[in-house]
Amino acid sequence: MTEQQEDLATNPGADQRSLDGVDLWWRAANYLSAGQIYLRDNPLLRRPLEPEDVKARLLGHWGTTPGLNFVYAHLNRVIAETGQDMLFVTGPGHGGPANIANAWLEGTYSEVYTHIGADEAGLRELFKQFSYPGGVPSHAAPETPGSINEGGELGYSLAHAYGAVFDHPELVAACVIGDGEAETAALAGSWHSSSFLNPVVDGAVLPILHLNGYKIANPTVLARMPQEQLAALLTGYGYEPHFVTVADPRETMRAHEEFAHALESCLAGIRSIQDEARAAGTGAPAGESAPRWPMIVLRSPKGWTGPELVDGKPVEGTWRAHQVPLSEVRTNPGHLEQLQQWLRSYRPEELFDGGGRLRAEIAALAPRGDKRMSATPYANGGRLLRDLVLPAYGDYAVVVNDPGTERVSPMANLGGWLREVIRLNPHNFRLFGPDETASNRLQDVYEATDKVWQQRIEDVDEHLARAGRVMEVLSENLCQGWLEGYLLTGRHGVFNCYEAFVHIVDSMFNQHAKWLEVHRELPWRQPVASLNYLLSSHVWQQDHNGFSHQDPGFIDHVLNKKPEVVRVYLPPDANTLLAVTEHCLASRDYVNVIVCGKQPSLAWLGPEAARNHAERGIGVWDFAGSERPGEEPDVVLACAGDVPTTEAVAAAGILRRQLPQLKVRLVNVVDLMRLQDAKEHPHGLEHRDFDRLFTTDKPIIFAHHGYPWLIHRLTYRRTNHGNLHVRGFIEEGTTTTPFDMAMMNRIDRFQLAIDVIDRVPSLGSAHTGLRQRLQDLRMRARRHTREHGEDPEEVAGWRL
Amino acid sequence: MTEQQEDLATNPGADQRSLDGVDLWWRAANYLSAGQIYLRDNPLLRRPLEPEDVKARLLGHWGTTPGLNFVYAHLNRVIAETGQDMLFVTGPGHGGPANIANAWLEGTYSEVYTHIGADEAGLRELFKQFSYPGGVPSHAAPETPGSINEGGELGYSLAHAYGAVFDHPELVAACVIGDGEAETAALAGSWHSSSFLNPVVDGAVLPILHLNGYKIANPTVLARMPQEQLAALLTGYGYEPHFVTVADPRETMRAHEEFAHALESCLAGIRSIQDEARAAGTGAPAGESAPRWPMIVLRSPKGWTGPELVDGKPVEGTWRAHQVPLSEVRTNPGHLEQLQQWLRSYRPEELFDGGGRLRAEIAALAPRGDKRMSATPYANGGRLLRDLVLPAYGDYAVVVNDPGTERVSPMANLGGWLREVIRLNPHNFRLFGPDETASNRLQDVYEATDKVWQQRIEDVDEHLARAGRVMEVLSENLCQGWLEGYLLTGRHGVFNCYEAFVHIVDSMFNQHAKWLEVHRELPWRQPVASLNYLLSSHVWQQDHNGFSHQDPGFIDHVLNKKPEVVRVYLPPDANTLLAVTEHCLASRDYVNVIVCGKQPSLAWLGPEAARNHAERGIGVWDFAGSERPGEEPDVVLACAGDVPTTEAVAAAGILRRQLPQLKVRLVNVVDLMRLQDAKEHPHGLEHRDFDRLFTTDKPIIFAHHGYPWLIHRLTYRRTNHGNLHVRGFIEEGTTTTPFDMAMMNRIDRFQLAIDVIDRVPSLGSAHTGLRQRLQDLRMRARRHTREHGEDPEEVAGWRL
Repeated sequence: MTEQQEDLATNPGADQRSLDGVDLWWRAANYLSAGQIYLRDNPLLRRPLEPEDVKARLLGHWGTTPGLNFVYAHLNRVIAETGQDMLFVTGPGHGGPANIANAWLEGTYSEVYTHIGADEAGLRELFKQFSYPGGVPSHAAPETPGSINEGGELGYSLAHAYGAVFDHPELVAACVIGDGEAETAALAGSWHSSSFLNPVVDGAVLPILHLNGYKIANPTVLARMPQEQLAALLTGYGYEPHFVTVADPRETMRAHEEFAHALESCLAGIRSIQDEARAAGTGAPAGESAPRWPMIVLRSPKGWTGPELVDGKPVEGTWRAHQVPLSEVRTNPGHLEQLQQWLRSYRPEELFDGGGRLRAEIAALAPRGDKRMSATPYANGGRLLRDLVLPAYGDYAVVVNDPGTERVSPMANLGGWLREVIRLNPHNFRLFGPDETASNRLQDVYEATDKVWQQRIEDVDEHLARAGRVMEVLSENLCQGWLEGYLLTGRHGVFNCYEAFVHIVDSMFNQHAKWLEVHRELPWRQPVASLNYLLSSHVWQQDHNGFSHQDPGFIDHVLNKKPEVVRVYLPPDANTLLAVTEHCLASRDYVNVIVCGKQPSLAWLGPEAARNHAERGIGVWDFAGSERPGEEPDVVLACAGDVPTTEAVAAAGILRRQLPQLKVRLVNVVDLMRLQDAKEHPHGLEHRDFDRLFTTDKPIIFAHHGYPWLIHRLTYRRTNHGNLHVRGFIEEGTTTTPFDMAMMNRIDRFQLAIDVIDRVPSLGSAHTGLRQRLQDLRMRARRHTREHGEDPEEVAGWRL
Repeated sequence: MTEQQEDLATNPGADQRSLDGVDLWWRAANYLSAGQIYLRDNPLLRRPLEPEDVKARLLGHWGTTPGLNFVYAHLNRVIAETGQDMLFVTGPGHGGPANIANAWLEGTYSEVYTHIGADEAGLRELFKQFSYPGGVPSHAAPETPGSINEGGELGYSLAHAYGAVFDHPELVAACVIGDGEAETAALAGSWHSSSFLNPVVDGAVLPILHLNGYKIANPTVLARMPQEQLAALLTGYGYEPHFVTVADPRETMRAHEEFAHALESCLAGIRSIQDEARAAGTGAPAGESAPRWPMIVLRSPKGWTGPELVDGKPVEGTWRAHQVPLSEVRTNPGHLEQLQQWLRSYRPEELFDGGGRLRAEIAALAPRGDKRMSATPYANGGRLLRDLVLPAYGDYAVVVNDPGTERVSPMANLGGWLREVIRLNPHNFRLFGPDETASNRLQDVYEATDKVWQQRIEDVDEHLARAGRVMEVLSENLCQGWLEGYLLTGRHGVFNCYEAFVHIVDSMFNQHAKWLEVHRELPWRQPVASLNYLLSSHVWQQDHNGFSHQDPGFIDHVLNKKPEVVRVYLPPDANTLLAVTEHCLASRDYVNVIVCGKQPSLAWLGPEAARNHAERGIGVWDFAGSERPGEEPDVVLACAGDVPTTEAVAAAGILRRQLPQLKVRLVNVVDLMRLQDAKEHPHGLEHRDFDRLFTTDKPIIFAHHGYPWLIHRLTYRRTNHGNLHVRGFIEEGTTTTPFDMAMMNRIDRFQLAIDVIDRVPSLGSAHTGLRQRLQDLRMRARRHTREHGEDPEEVAGWRL
């Protein structure tokens, strides 16, 4: 603070004329913001305000808006002067009026929404649609030009901002963080992102912590802690805070001067860190710590420039300004009059011409074209998207001479292919993971790249460097947030994660899927790369971790979102995993979930067969079944997921040997959505195709990777659903071997064979002997495992 | 640091003899920890180690364990000397060997698991069961005596520790936080808990940040940032850090001295804050900030006392010590020899007598009885549990003269009852929420209590105080973590949250449900109060927030967990909400999810009827249907959730008036699990009872609060499932009125009536006119809402 004040004395900062412009812009934006919250007509106050001019239900949010407008106006001044590429990330919830107001002032709003023109009629529409049935929400959203961050669920702004600037060295993301939002876990964990930002290859984030003191109904922790504690906290997070405190809300020009100065200092600080690092070329020497990046703390009154007192109670500067400061405007003439005075205080006649067009001298303050933050291609990443160069599938697929005879780790094999993806796309792809990339067996990527790290590097560290393509931090939230920011600004990536713990980002997934659902319907938003989850260390392979690590429910969660945006794949072996991943990395606007094991497991399909199978998503495995050409099978053994597939094929083998007369069909499912009706999901099978695969009247025993009811949910409309019997994870877990896990959940080969015996009517009771032997084998295997600490050797290729 | 060193000079701290005891205990715990990871036999090394003595699969984790043992030994010394009640919270993942070792040393392990005795045979069992099929996981878990925190999914230790000490003024929770864990969002957000801890009525948390430098495969952010940055960070979080740095791993006595001194200083600091506050009585004056609580930063080598080098590579003090430092013991004689040397370095012959019993002088170092951290009732909260005193239901139920004629906000009404719960249980119940208690209309609780806040309080603040029963912080993670800690230490609580954003804690719910699943099967763990979610501001009532706030999928997520522990209720009105909540607050060992709206909505059932309905969980509403006694209905209109119920009853009304000959049965579902088969869930209906309600062959139109497929998933085994047609949220959302939302998702009264017309075969095509009128009404209503910003007035009691 003291330092800054000294600085201010020696460097008077922005000249008065340009700050007058900032103030004018701010005034216009504030007017448009208040107008959106209140007015359905009379947008220029050409006549005295009548109750009918006001919306029937007042549902917008004023509190955070003027502060956002203030920051936006200042950023615009800098952009206009310097041509800096800048992205505006709106962290505070319900700051939507600000983003919309500024986008309209910059002309962008009318460009992308032509029915909302740059004139009085347009203004009327702009106001009316806000927080109005069928209109736009009161927070930044996909519909908001210039936004990559939804302001509904709080906490992700800073992670998004960092994701946005990775590999965009020319970009500065100005990230306004609300002090309510700052209390969320996700935001609190995001500050450390600067330990992963490389000043040479990445751009910069300028965090602007906006302390307006209150959330919905309470003060905020960051605003109320002592100033020196806050300074320590931000220093501890790795930043150099510049404080701008608006002590007197009426002294706006003083606030402008201080903020302009802080902003200039911060941008100079950023430039200086970047220049130094870029001159050196590769980043700081190993022994050094991460640079201390500048940031701003703006302490300004909630609802600044709005009503100071309402009905005798303080509003401006308090939690009462959070939503609508005047709530009875339609029924209380005093409130109506106060609203009119408030709106008139922005002097709309000075802002707009007779036709409701923004006066030219204000419009001239905006940056031009793509430099406008509301029009920047960085916030419409599809405009910047370049296809990934993908290595040839054939070079990485494994040869399979005989199905189910050799073991390959699907994830390790994929690691080799991903290594080449990284080599071929040096600035366009990153791999994200919570300290699990090697644990998930993708370590081959380290032949081509390193893990990014800006803190001290020691001799003992491996694959750790200033620059690299792998982002590892022990925070699923941060991985997800970074990747979202990276994708929405036009790049590609994969998030590899333990299956059980990806639930940590359930809610972030929800919000990203919802973002995509809306984004796809906006013609002006260009397609972006899909968000790819690669989930391993899954429910069946948690030998030492046990029950807390066993949860396959993420796919259930994902499938609640719109079929247009979600895809779930369960590749059964190394080559199908490769084929599926290749497909996902080339796709757009989806969330793809791939679940596959990391342990060496049986390879079933050769390169060609695997690719065809992955493309079809479902198919009969003749090599595993015992059908006879032209005859219907007696039973269908279906499977989805690598471990269930191994068990189902083994069960089919047992049946083939023991009951050679029985005709077993084995159906493997890679693409779960194939099970759904074609009317429900674009990948769904037509009923006749489903019936052809699963028959209309034979028993189906289905071994599923996850919770069994998911399969019922996907198939309840199918003809043969009544004969479907699903085995899956029934929440029976502990610390044990994969095969013992299968037995605990009754999805093992013996149980599946027993299920077939129990359900094929033609077998009658002639096979109780075989049934008993299978039961005995189960018991023997369980006992052996628990006594010897490993499965009996025969498990791999059990013969009866 | 300097200060502390000065202190150390003037105050030599613990005497040498007691530190010798600490070192002896530490040695014993380390031996038992390494033994668990490696040995299946020869637990006392009575004979040279053979490959067969070693487990076939080495799956444990050594890295963090010796540091945990170190802390535990020091805490024991203090407890034994002072009788302090202390709870040990193990944050670092995979620290299980330490907890188990110490519990065995304290005798608790053999008390609760009698098959694992306090002798050589017991030791063999203790070692073998660890990370072994059917045994115990390598992290703290419900099976671990003394633990309330699962070490599997990281990030919740600090929130649990705070929850544990709320309303336990005599308790200190020593919370070891791993530096990996510290990177998670949840942990990063938990530090601010001290802004909500009252030194008068609450106990204290002693955070012990354990920097061993590495997570699985990477250094950690907190360990690698410059020391002064770390000091600033912890100061910024509101703590006074005491640093203990183990520079030389061999200088263990120096480490003991420094740690003992730091621990004593911290406990003295805690006592001093408490004494001052308790002398004053009610906490600090409004103008003051939260006290700066002491904490310890222990920088010690990962895998301390383990192998320094393996195969020439550094292990101790590096990420290579994370899991098993020697991995080829069975096949590499060099590794086997090194293991033997390592184990012998703890001199087991000095630790155990000939029978494998802990030598008496070591056993004597442990605290006694319930003071042992492994035996403390605070970690087995059911032992401390006292029933809640619940206010009389009848005093808060609303009178309903005529169903569906008066509007009451169910949540606001419940707020009055909760106010009395708070009055009647001054130290045994808290209400948690992310800044949404008033927004969810529970504000009546503020007549009896305040929101807890330890930072500065200003005149403008309302219902904010040093002490209170309402915990509000803008972090769902923190609310959940606090509540879990509060419940597991024997108290009661409710978490009120917006429905959509409760997904933020999906994964925390998973872990708590899994904890309960295991806990219920352990005879020595006493039942605890259920975790109650009260979800409001739900998918159908998000007028201004829009799509980002619309997600009813939490109940889908919850229902994946074991039926024994999960309960989901959708009360249709004020009285059923009251009855359901009363039931949930008296229950034990469940997770209860209650979803109900906050807006004034129609009251259907009087006090008596509502209670009966809530108890039955499902029932026919004669007043709404048009059945004739003794005759089967033509169609069943079913509903679950408040908005769907209103629409279904309105649809039944339309049908009654328009098609008086049609016999409509209306079934309302409060308890979703009633829909399941009795074999699947303890609340499930027998098939014959289900068939009686839903018929075996008539069409069922089901209006459901959430995603429609959940109802199919719960009922696919029912006789009449083929005739079931479900309406629910199909991810069609935007900023609009509740009725417009219902129309967008086709769950509105007109659509439900159309569904009936379309599906009752006897109606034939005679009703195309009525069908068309209903369609027209839908269109008219949609247009009106979008034009006027509110629903047409007729919606409330639409007449055709």
